[in-house]
Amino acid sequence: MYIVPESEVQNLITPDEAFDAVESVFASMAKRSAYNFPVIREAIGHADALYGFKSGFDRESLALGLKSGGFWPGNTKRGLTNHQSSVFLFDANTGRCRAVVGGNLLTALRTAAASAVSIKYIARKGAKTIGIIGAGHQSAFQLRAALKQRQFERVFGWNIDPSMLSRLEGVSSEAGLPFEAVELEKLGAESDVIITITSSFSPILKASQVRPGTHLACMGTDTKGKQEVEAELVATASIFTDEIAQSVSIGECQHAVAASMIHQDAVVELGAVINGDHPGRLSEEEITLYDGTGVGLQDLAVASRIVELAIKSGAAKNIDF
Amino acid sequence: MYIVPESEVQNLITPDEAFDAVESVFASMAKRSAYNFPVIREAIGHADALYGFKSGFDRESLALGLKSGGFWPGNTKRGLTNHQSSVFLFDANTGRCRAVVGGNLLTALRTAAASAVSIKYIARKGAKTIGIIGAGHQSAFQLRAALKQRQFERVFGWNIDPSMLSRLEGVSSEAGLPFEAVELEKLGAESDVIITITSSFSPILKASQVRPGTHLACMGTDTKGKQEVEAELVATASIFTDEIAQSVSIGECQHAVAASMIHQDAVVELGAVINGDHPGRLSEEEITLYDGTGVGLQDLAVASRIVELAIKSGAAKNIDF
Repeated sequence: MYIVPESEVQNLITPDEAFDAVESVFASMAKRSAYNFPVIREAIGHADALYGFKSGFDRESLALGLKSGGFWPGNTKRGLTNHQSSVFLFDANTGRCRAVVGGNLLTALRTAAASAVSIKYIARKGAKTIGIIGAGHQSAFQLRAALKQRQFERVFGWNIDPSMLSRLEGVSSEAGLPFEAVELEKLGAESDVIITITSSFSPILKASQVRPGTHLACMGTDTKGKQEVEAELVATASIFTDEIAQSVSIGECQHAVAASMIHQDAVVELGAVINGDHPGRLSEEEITLYDGTGVGLQDLAVASRIVELAIKSGAAKNIDF
Repeated sequence: MYIVPESEVQNLITPDEAFDAVESVFASMAKRSAYNFPVIREAIGHADALYGFKSGFDRESLALGLKSGGFWPGNTKRGLTNHQSSVFLFDANTGRCRAVVGGNLLTALRTAAASAVSIKYIARKGAKTIGIIGAGHQSAFQLRAALKQRQFERVFGWNIDPSMLSRLEGVSSEAGLPFEAVELEKLGAESDVIITITSSFSPILKASQVRPGTHLACMGTDTKGKQEVEAELVATASIFTDEIAQSVSIGECQHAVAASMIHQDAVVELGAVINGDHPGRLSEEEITLYDGTGVGLQDLAVASRIVELAIKSGAAKNIDF
């Protein structure tokens, strides 16, 4: 059994490799070669923790297993990150545990990769400006991955606590791009691509604030009750997602579906666009929206790549198990 | 993170320690201090495998995590056991993976411990004879654990392929007890305690074959469609189980419930008897039946004990993770 500790992951996989892994497994999902198992998510009644599993199997790559962990709000006080997860890969030919991989950085990379894949396939080719709503830990990963997909020239940012926007300013300046902290009106009016990455439980961005032709990647909503943008905006957009079942139940689409403003048949798997089975964006005026809910297969795909790289580089500990 | 390889487990935990761990977690479950999460079980469409998870949390012991693995029918040809599983324990205070434990022997021990706990609490005190139906790998564990619970004087065995009964004969002779391969009629007529441990999909033991006062532990049924004893026998008995929800849906009780011969309110948690909240057996004439479906908390309880013992003995590998 191979062990790849959390501390090694950053030395092993690049955002580009995570991007390739996620792009490829989304394609598998849309071909029905890969599927996610039901998600388990439990408030365990201890330490205010949410604990659970995301899991699945990809018959093409033979990635099998799960990511397990969750949200421990008291961890910061202990000097640990609140989101903790580990990935367990199984040998699809024997059922034996093949690898254990630290899942924290991996989760950040796979989530960022998903919105970047959506930008690659659905944003306007000529997109020049990007707006980020939310400035927490994950926002830097989202922006960094997004910037590779188009020739962006300016970055806008909004956060409920504006002092945190220095994080996005830092990423922008790494890339040699000007950054501006703005109000939502200006962010919507100026951004060709918008990524929302918050834990909001009420809509932040309004339909009236978004221009024709914008591509939105809504990445923060992964639970019943969460919401980042107005349901009207979802209803106006051409909608893409990682997994339709999650999108309409725990993703950003849940509210528009519950209000009968859209039907789940209107939601397209991003993998179908990758595979060429759906044209993706149809016009320069269309508003497109990617609802990124996060699926176990993303974790397995990136973890599998990390294990390959770790074996190659000698960073994987091979333990008799 | 501690790693306890499969090969070490046999040197670490005794059946008595597995018994204590299972007894204790059944008590926690009945006090609602511990609960199992939903079971995931998937036919993955590769290697004819069934793969899944059993998981839960015990607020008393803080055991948190899952057992993952399944059934790979082609493993025998590879020189591996068909049932493969691994247990992952998490730190309930931080959500970090605390230990990875080989789950094959552990599964055998925790399953045997469950029927033994049922014998301790529900079989007649004066039980002298035991019958085992089924002579596969698991049957030896069941018999060995059962023999410690009463002053048994004779062992009877039945198997669809009688040549396999030498396994049970061996365990009996280890314990200095006479063993007899018999027909089902005789097994039922002579046994004070009966354990069924088969993968049968139709009833083997009939209601008419079982005497008043018998305690049955039905340990083989863990899937929709499986069945070891006639539904009439279940309906006649006072019924105990590990988890009622599993008993009536995937356990031995599924058929009697589906046929409206019993109501699920008639099924008592074994933990309630352990806690003294239910009297258990009420008379010497009563037929009692324990429906052992197998729950994730058993796995976590035994794995936690194994990890404690492995740390103490130095057998646990402590890996930076």
